[in-house]
Amino acid sequence: MKIAILPGDGIGPEIVEQAVNVLNALDEKFELESAPVGGAGYVAHGHPLPDGTLKLAQEADAILFGAVGDWKYDTLERALRPEQAILGLRKNLGLFANLRPAILYPELAGASTLKPEVVSGLDILIIRELTGDIYFGQPRGVRIAPDGAFKGEREGFDTMRYAESEIRRIAHVAFQAAQKRDKRLTSVDKANVLETFQFWKDIVTDVHREYPDVALDHMYVDNAAMQLVRAPKKFDVIVTGNMFGDILSDAAAMLTGSIGMLPSASLDANNKGLYEPSHGSAPDIAGKGIANPLATILSVAMMLRFSLNKAEQADRVERAVKKVLAQGLRTADIYEAGTTKIGTKEMGDAVVKAL
Amino acid sequence: MKIAILPGDGIGPEIVEQAVNVLNALDEKFELESAPVGGAGYVAHGHPLPDGTLKLAQEADAILFGAVGDWKYDTLERALRPEQAILGLRKNLGLFANLRPAILYPELAGASTLKPEVVSGLDILIIRELTGDIYFGQPRGVRIAPDGAFKGEREGFDTMRYAESEIRRIAHVAFQAAQKRDKRLTSVDKANVLETFQFWKDIVTDVHREYPDVALDHMYVDNAAMQLVRAPKKFDVIVTGNMFGDILSDAAAMLTGSIGMLPSASLDANNKGLYEPSHGSAPDIAGKGIANPLATILSVAMMLRFSLNKAEQADRVERAVKKVLAQGLRTADIYEAGTTKIGTKEMGDAVVKAL
Ligand SMILES: CC(C)[C@H](C(=O)O)[C@@H](O)C(=O)O
Ligand SMILES: CC(C)[C@H](C(=O)O)[C@@H](O)C(=O)O
Repeated sequence: MKIAILPGDGIGPEIVEQAVNVLNALDEKFELESAPVGGAGYVAHGHPLPDGTLKLAQEADAILFGAVGDWKYDTLERALRPEQAILGLRKNLGLFANLRPAILYPELAGASTLKPEVVSGLDILIIRELTGDIYFGQPRGVRIAPDGAFKGEREGFDTMRYAESEIRRIAHVAFQAAQKRDKRLTSVDKANVLETFQFWKDIVTDVHREYPDVALDHMYVDNAAMQLVRAPKKFDVIVTGNMFGDILSDAAAMLTGSIGMLPSASLDANNKGLYEPSHGSAPDIAGKGIANPLATILSVAMMLRFSLNKAEQADRVERAVKKVLAQGLRTADIYEAGTTKIGTKEMGDAVVKAL
Repeated sequence: MKIAILPGDGIGPEIVEQAVNVLNALDEKFELESAPVGGAGYVAHGHPLPDGTLKLAQEADAILFGAVGDWKYDTLERALRPEQAILGLRKNLGLFANLRPAILYPELAGASTLKPEVVSGLDILIIRELTGDIYFGQPRGVRIAPDGAFKGEREGFDTMRYAESEIRRIAHVAFQAAQKRDKRLTSVDKANVLETFQFWKDIVTDVHREYPDVALDHMYVDNAAMQLVRAPKKFDVIVTGNMFGDILSDAAAMLTGSIGMLPSASLDANNKGLYEPSHGSAPDIAGKGIANPLATILSVAMMLRFSLNKAEQADRVERAVKKVLAQGLRTADIYEAGTTKIGTKEMGDAVVKAL
């Protein structure tokens, strides 16, 4: 089985290196092939998602992705900026199901800005639709307003849209994920204002008839943002669209205070997937050897479980990470008095050793 | 000067009654006239925003609004549901500037789910554009997809749009508000994905040239949601669009843990405004006499300041509320051991007495 390795920018290369070491330390051997992406893709081939990189990603069974983006590319025109790489990969590969767990490890409870009683034991799963919504809807652009109160003026515009089958397939993923957990699914919408999300709500309600064992509730996105702050542990699985999911999954990740620990998976209809840490490229600490590689290593665990069908190996990696935490080893982002502060490479080595 | 009183549904009537008592206790006398709105409007006249109510709101110098919505109206078609009243008032009256302070009163620091050091002294102002964006953009609906990968299927769709002058006017409001505070403005966008918000960012940057004394920064909405959880005190004034503002202002309000304390103002180009508590209609506790009237009373203070030009009276009301808190009086939502739990009416009476 072949894995595409796309380290990207900022801390991407450092953290991916450690995750690759973990992959190589497993009994199972995989074929690994690297390619530049994001700013690195632009520098190497003039485009954030070079043809060769896209081709490699298409051919591989799974993709390990670091992070993209750096201030130095801020002046490029939008089509050439690093984040276009991740949007292009999602769209071209049909990676419509983004799974983002927000888990607070007991050892790291202190890292959260929320009170321990509000977040200790937090374990929620946000499922974000990733190839539809206002991210890709056409038409979009800047034009002279064709009608309305501002007719004749310049306006920026975008199109939000969700087709029935797009909603159905993400709803199935969400109900099935809920079946494997506490059997509670919250569908987040804005049906009181948006036609797209009234439609979303209707379709999710319809799909629910196939999953009578899952309790479904509907929540407006503004209320969901409040409930995540007020009582996040009340959620089990949340499913929502691309735009709302972007916002809520980041908010949920930050509740843990340790976004350096959170992996993510973006899956297609056949469970082929792209795996990446939930955090970004952090150009401010790139090259210093202090970034936390654990979110990327845990992304490898998700890859083993979802795309490579090696659930046992996935468990091993997750157990190794827990062991390292229990040993008191911490990178700077999750360091607290009484623990041992180590760098990116030492952390990767510790996980390999714990395997 | 004439004030339209629109109590609405749920706890709306109870809390508005107390705010009216406060208005009546001021030296200045105002003409007050009530009308039904939301579910109450539908029950009385078959529409959530009856003609007579809209006319009254149009003629008045300011509007005091309670809250709308109740589960019992959930089965009505969308155009007749209570929340259409607030959308209709905003649009018909041109109330484009929504000011939502998120303030944590020192006496209530314990109410927050966040650690005291993260939120104590929190005082941020969110300015949400209120009459544009995907809330009102046309076309919208459910149709057969005309193109794209799902051509021929049913799809829900909406249009996000912002005209140049809409962005300019809210930017001016935001820069001017920042000038009266710590002179720092964060404009929240999603310019890396949305054409509407790249345009937004460009226009806000242009308006900034008229306010060289204000420090402007730009932040993506997903990052803003994270930073609100991580370090909310770093913000001074935030300005954003209607949809992002809906989500972020509710998240920010919930950081305080005491959303029953937070007022809001929705202003037109001439500072005529609608004033309402940031919380909703809470039908579960309606009629029990336990709702917190302070957000509505503080909305009266905002009304005195922004629409009625009575800054001194506004200060008086705010001082009275602080005094009541200092006396240890609390409604159930903000009650803590060691304070005195009282009901809606007692709280209103206490503020009148403190005046
Ligand atoms: C970089 C950006 C386009 C992207 C998104 O908005 O989807 C990122 O925020 C994410 O969540 O992966
Ligand atoms: C009731 C609803 C339409 C409204 C909105 O989304 O604007 C509410 O959430 C608000 O923020 O005032």
